[in-house]
Amino acid sequence: MKKQEKKPAKELESFGKKLVVDIDKGRNPTIEFSLRTLSNVVYDTKTKTLGLGEKQQQRTFFNVGHAKKFMQTLEVAKISKTLLDVQKHASLRDVFYMAKRTISQSNINIVDDQVESDKAIEDLELITDCSREQLNINANKMGSVAGNVVIEDSGDTINWARLGSGGWSIPSNVEEIEFKSVKAKYIIYMEKQAVWERLHEDKFWEKQNCLIVTSQGQTTRGIRRLLQRLYEEYKLPIYVLADFDGWGFYIYSVLKFGSISLAHMSEELAIPSAKFLGITADDAINYDLKKHFIKLKDVDYSRLKQIADYDWFKKNKEWQRQFKMMKEFGAKLEIQALSSKGITFISDKYLPEKIKKQELLD
Amino acid sequence: MKKQEKKPAKELESFGKKLVVDIDKGRNPTIEFSLRTLSNVVYDTKTKTLGLGEKQQQRTFFNVGHAKKFMQTLEVAKISKTLLDVQKHASLRDVFYMAKRTISQSNINIVDDQVESDKAIEDLELITDCSREQLNINANKMGSVAGNVVIEDSGDTINWARLGSGGWSIPSNVEEIEFKSVKAKYIIYMEKQAVWERLHEDKFWEKQNCLIVTSQGQTTRGIRRLLQRLYEEYKLPIYVLADFDGWGFYIYSVLKFGSISLAHMSEELAIPSAKFLGITADDAINYDLKKHFIKLKDVDYSRLKQIADYDWFKKNKEWQRQFKMMKEFGAKLEIQALSSKGITFISDKYLPEKIKKQELLD
Repeated sequence: MKKQEKKPAKELESFGKKLVVDIDKGRNPTIEFSLRTLSNVVYDTKTKTLGLGEKQQQRTFFNVGHAKKFMQTLEVAKISKTLLDVQKHASLRDVFYMAKRTISQSNINIVDDQVESDKAIEDLELITDCSREQLNINANKMGSVAGNVVIEDSGDTINWARLGSGGWSIPSNVEEIEFKSVKAKYIIYMEKQAVWERLHEDKFWEKQNCLIVTSQGQTTRGIRRLLQRLYEEYKLPIYVLADFDGWGFYIYSVLKFGSISLAHMSEELAIPSAKFLGITADDAINYDLKKHFIKLKDVDYSRLKQIADYDWFKKNKEWQRQFKMMKEFGAKLEIQALSSKGITFISDKYLPEKIKKQELLD
Repeated sequence: MKKQEKKPAKELESFGKKLVVDIDKGRNPTIEFSLRTLSNVVYDTKTKTLGLGEKQQQRTFFNVGHAKKFMQTLEVAKISKTLLDVQKHASLRDVFYMAKRTISQSNINIVDDQVESDKAIEDLELITDCSREQLNINANKMGSVAGNVVIEDSGDTINWARLGSGGWSIPSNVEEIEFKSVKAKYIIYMEKQAVWERLHEDKFWEKQNCLIVTSQGQTTRGIRRLLQRLYEEYKLPIYVLADFDGWGFYIYSVLKFGSISLAHMSEELAIPSAKFLGITADDAINYDLKKHFIKLKDVDYSRLKQIADYDWFKKNKEWQRQFKMMKEFGAKLEIQALSSKGITFISDKYLPEKIKKQELLD
């Protein structure tokens, strides 16, 4: 059963009931869920995403090493249940403050640091098999979208094609959004808001019949989920436009394969069919951009090595060729280097040409 | 004459023509504009904003120390003129790449680093007395807005009250936006997107008849200008909701008084009437939030000292009292600490109460 078909409140209830049975029968209350350490993160070559292996962990109440985490897990479960009951959402930081208090007649706090409540929430995702968003706990909000799509959200009908120069501000939680009409052939996701504004001003999405989406830097969960939903529900291909550097590759990697820390969420967040549109090493040559190379520093080389060693890039000849060329260049390159060719070069030539020829990395 | 009434293309033309006259008359081509160093930044006690003093600087072509900067200034003027002619906008990074090239028969680049083109653009703001945005050069895009306002932008009519959970994504340049209808009594500007989502979900702007605006962290130029326009054109009071820490105070300070690096732009960006809504030292006591104190570190103390020494805070007894209390507490406090009182405590009690009693810092 997919996470989206689960009923979070019901899952939380049965989680609680199971513990009550343990107590009633005089057993040590026990929570069991997948082990969430690197040793249990596997790259599934079939689905081409990161996921968790078979290893399980137990958390018991009568165990000095487990007791505090046990309590924290129950505390965030309680908070999530309250949120669901009153139909409100909270941020990770909010949940931390909601959980943070001193246990009476002791000097022990339920949580001292947000890391603790964050981890408990991730555990709760595994225990209930519901995403944080379904548990009404939101991630950060960031990013904009424009294109020929009409949605319904919180009782409003919103046309992404009619929102002026700003576009729609993507919320942290997109689970409840309903797509009413989607007229587009593909999606370009870019890491930079400034590039988004470039394409938006050039009416790129209108001319090319596509959607344009951006966050700033690393992609938020809200945007990853939005892109995944548009892919799953409308089969829109997703092209990633990022800098030719380790950071750009990593943004692509997370979007496509999932991330190590959220391996248990890959099914809801990863988009195995996403393609890397650019900037590539070949672009540097074909579009005569070498003069805008930025010299690699030590930190760039070590990042590159790290990424080249990822399982999913290791056996990919095309990507290894890119990494090799970057090393030979001794340089990285930014999307905005295309501006040196003219203000609208990216919209008029670079993107249409690359997409038409399907010069994409997998 | 206000910057908004200037015609940027005309200003650029007369800038160029003046230099042509210099050349025709055999004079050393000279640019003259206000000195933009700290020694010429003054706090105007009348307008209560930062501004530039009387000192002027000259940049001449036949001067080894000036020649390169002279050329860079003309180069960005040319780029801006092109942008205005073709009615396109570019980001600071774009302008850098547009300017970056090697002068033929030499090994000298017009610009080597973005800092150079950024500085030249700021100089151009002074030379033409037009803002960067009027020169079609955009800052970063960030942030969201919701409330009972209808605008026209790029041919679209947009109702900020009907944009679902996301809100309108604020563009980097808001000069061309036209307000069609503004129904609100005040604006709350908050530094955190998560708090914005809290208030939005609680329909705070609807219940309280206000607008809610956020960026993430430091306020972008686009948002500062949007707030200023709403204040100037509709006399909407602006209340700032930030953390009780040096960073939160600084966000408020920049919004209200202007910033040192953009002192020449205060007239377009500063909002002297803005008020600080919270979190204050008194809130910590009145709302029983002391248990959520975060201990000040060395960096917090030095930031606090810096801010307490600003001219505009120095003579303000209320603010000095806040700074003193922070030192006594030895602690800072986050907005989200209010969540410990209940999910909607901030919307139901804290904000309505503070605003009703007008418990605001000036």
